[in-house]
Amino acid sequence: MRAGIVVTGTEVLTGRITDENGPWVAQRLLAMGVDVAHITIGGDRPEDLTAQLRFLADTGVDLIVTTGGLGPTADDLTVETVARFCERPLYLDDDLERHIGQIISRWQRQRGEAESESTRAGTHKQAMVPGGALAIPPVGTAPGVAVPAVTDGERGLPAILVLPGPPRELQGMWDAAISAAPVAAAIAGRGDFREQTIRAFGLSESDLAATLRSVEPRIAGIGDLEITTCLRRGEVEIVTRYPAGAQPAYDALADELREHHHGEIFSVDGATIDDLVAATLQGRTVATAESCTGGMIAARLTDRAGSSDYVVGGVVSYSNAAKSGTLDVPAELIDEHGAVSEPVAAAMAAGAVRRFGVDIAVSTSGIAGPGGGTPGKPVGTVCFGLAFADGTALARTLYLPGDRAAVRERSTTVAMHMLHRALQP
Amino acid sequence: MRAGIVVTGTEVLTGRITDENGPWVAQRLLAMGVDVAHITIGGDRPEDLTAQLRFLADTGVDLIVTTGGLGPTADDLTVETVARFCERPLYLDDDLERHIGQIISRWQRQRGEAESESTRAGTHKQAMVPGGALAIPPVGTAPGVAVPAVTDGERGLPAILVLPGPPRELQGMWDAAISAAPVAAAIAGRGDFREQTIRAFGLSESDLAATLRSVEPRIAGIGDLEITTCLRRGEVEIVTRYPAGAQPAYDALADELREHHHGEIFSVDGATIDDLVAATLQGRTVATAESCTGGMIAARLTDRAGSSDYVVGGVVSYSNAAKSGTLDVPAELIDEHGAVSEPVAAAMAAGAVRRFGVDIAVSTSGIAGPGGGTPGKPVGTVCFGLAFADGTALARTLYLPGDRAAVRERSTTVAMHMLHRALQP
Repeated sequence: MRAGIVVTGTEVLTGRITDENGPWVAQRLLAMGVDVAHITIGGDRPEDLTAQLRFLADTGVDLIVTTGGLGPTADDLTVETVARFCERPLYLDDDLERHIGQIISRWQRQRGEAESESTRAGTHKQAMVPGGALAIPPVGTAPGVAVPAVTDGERGLPAILVLPGPPRELQGMWDAAISAAPVAAAIAGRGDFREQTIRAFGLSESDLAATLRSVEPRIAGIGDLEITTCLRRGEVEIVTRYPAGAQPAYDALADELREHHHGEIFSVDGATIDDLVAATLQGRTVATAESCTGGMIAARLTDRAGSSDYVVGGVVSYSNAAKSGTLDVPAELIDEHGAVSEPVAAAMAAGAVRRFGVDIAVSTSGIAGPGGGTPGKPVGTVCFGLAFADGTALARTLYLPGDRAAVRERSTTVAMHMLHRALQP
Repeated sequence: MRAGIVVTGTEVLTGRITDENGPWVAQRLLAMGVDVAHITIGGDRPEDLTAQLRFLADTGVDLIVTTGGLGPTADDLTVETVARFCERPLYLDDDLERHIGQIISRWQRQRGEAESESTRAGTHKQAMVPGGALAIPPVGTAPGVAVPAVTDGERGLPAILVLPGPPRELQGMWDAAISAAPVAAAIAGRGDFREQTIRAFGLSESDLAATLRSVEPRIAGIGDLEITTCLRRGEVEIVTRYPAGAQPAYDALADELREHHHGEIFSVDGATIDDLVAATLQGRTVATAESCTGGMIAARLTDRAGSSDYVVGGVVSYSNAAKSGTLDVPAELIDEHGAVSEPVAAAMAAGAVRRFGVDIAVSTSGIAGPGGGTPGKPVGTVCFGLAFADGTALARTLYLPGDRAAVRERSTTVAMHMLHRALQP
């Protein structure tokens, strides 16, 4: 059971905006047991879209999912192009037109705008549906369309699911779309696949590969597990897909991994380090004291709704004066050890605990580069500090690879893991 | 003159890592006057890669650029698959093998590792080149390959440029790759295209569309301009591609846009707001005082190498206590007006100026959601403050659309623009 994904939009094709929809749809399909064979990205030219549909149909996929090109204007041509590709004439769905019209009228009333000829034309256009296809109710104003597969006749066609481009609208109609009869029928034969994710921190890919090689002969049915590993910001993600029948093999693998790497594995249920930090911070308070990460730890902690329950605040102390003035790091300490040093990192964290009156604080002071490195403290040298309400503090130093952005991002992840480990009972 | 881009890698196809290479290569090609027709993304299966190459060749592109799959291990199959597709047997390039071997030996010496049979096999594999193709010297260990087009015979083939997956390696060999004879020959016939970008802030897409409609009849040759507009984080980006001969039409368009929207256009030469803020901050100092943006403004300012010249520090004052304790915002002011209010935002910025001793500070206090909204201050209400060393401060309130992430990101961009406007002479 395989699917193809077609992403339309000149902005995506020309690299001006990053596509979120292809990866999102791919992950959903995979989790459902549908393999993704190809993602294609094209502009707004109908002949390019037709060529991509033809290509995917010819490779024998069971389902094509398209994203984008469903707006009310003349250059939004996906439904029309799909209809022509499937040789299904468009017809006006009256109920759908009324429904979209009501949504638009409500918006216009809220903004005090008058109904116009051009919005009426747009509504009419968005309510056109290929014959035999099913409209999927809009989340914004653009309905999705599910076109049934053609399995008889000389030339079969896969089912085509046409979804809007704005990620919020696409994701909002996903459940309805995937259970629409034409789509459900096309993927009815999919296997009962499962996907599990194990995450580790501080584990090298080569050590993991060695472990996998060593346990392989011991696990019956390991051949049914599709294991992919991915290194990301210092974390290793081990994603395994398998048919339901291979659950014992997966369980054996997970046990072996836990046994070999219990110190490094922090999640076996898909939870991210951000999930775990948020959970362990419930009922406590945290602050940050950042130099080289420049606010990225605070931004990451507050990214989450409800974070105001535990994030009290933070300081970005980029200059030495700021480290002394806002975090009470003694100037002599900086003079003696340098700003990038374990004593200063510990003092920064301790200062944040006192200033914000929190249970725990984490700090960074490092050389993100490209300038500022010395033989003793090369670019990538980052000192991390942790401090607690009882006055204890600790620090450690890491040497992180990569350019400025990589060092800053990796440091932020390290700080999250330090917080998490420190908060373990 | 059209090109196709093939991105390989299971992690990209399955959405576990975001592809950077497709957009990057697309932008480079477009800037050179080569249209991009399709980007395809596939996994590590050779038959899927072959299908994508076949598809692109059949659509008649002049050049295919592939990224990824050039590593030393057995599942890196791009060169082999391309060679088979072009019916060009692989041969060992001795000089290349020596060159890669030297790179690897240097790495191994640095890490104190011994040379192994598996690295020798990997080096051998990476030094295999399709007959008649040109190797492009590696930036990491993987060389690129440029395969000439086949223009005679029954079935022509486009030139194929095979590049490595790590963005740093790909970008590092781009200039050499694009001037390699097989590639240069394939795109020799490209037009002399130009691309210009105008950026505006606070301009709606519909106002811009109205302006474009109104000026169209007045500009001779406007039909030669390919104008795309893109709304991003509150900014509108107007990108225009045109043949060199249409320069007068572009100049006339740029003049009209500047005349109609001089208050909103902040860049006509491609500079981003980050570039402009960094330039205007030279010789001055800045601090931040963030609530709803939670460190994102500080992180964005310090993203840039050399930012320590002007960024002194910042405070993330998520709680009211932090606003009072670290930024000296009077508790009575918060009681009277609420934390999300113009007086508090102004006081936060003024506190940051005093605490950090800087020339200018910017502040945010808002309701990013999803909770916390009230009828009077709905989700999306964000107050911004600016303060200066002479003691003056000002504030304004905006109502921003979207979810938590959108409100936070948009607020960060607004703060950058406020800084930029405040620093204008």
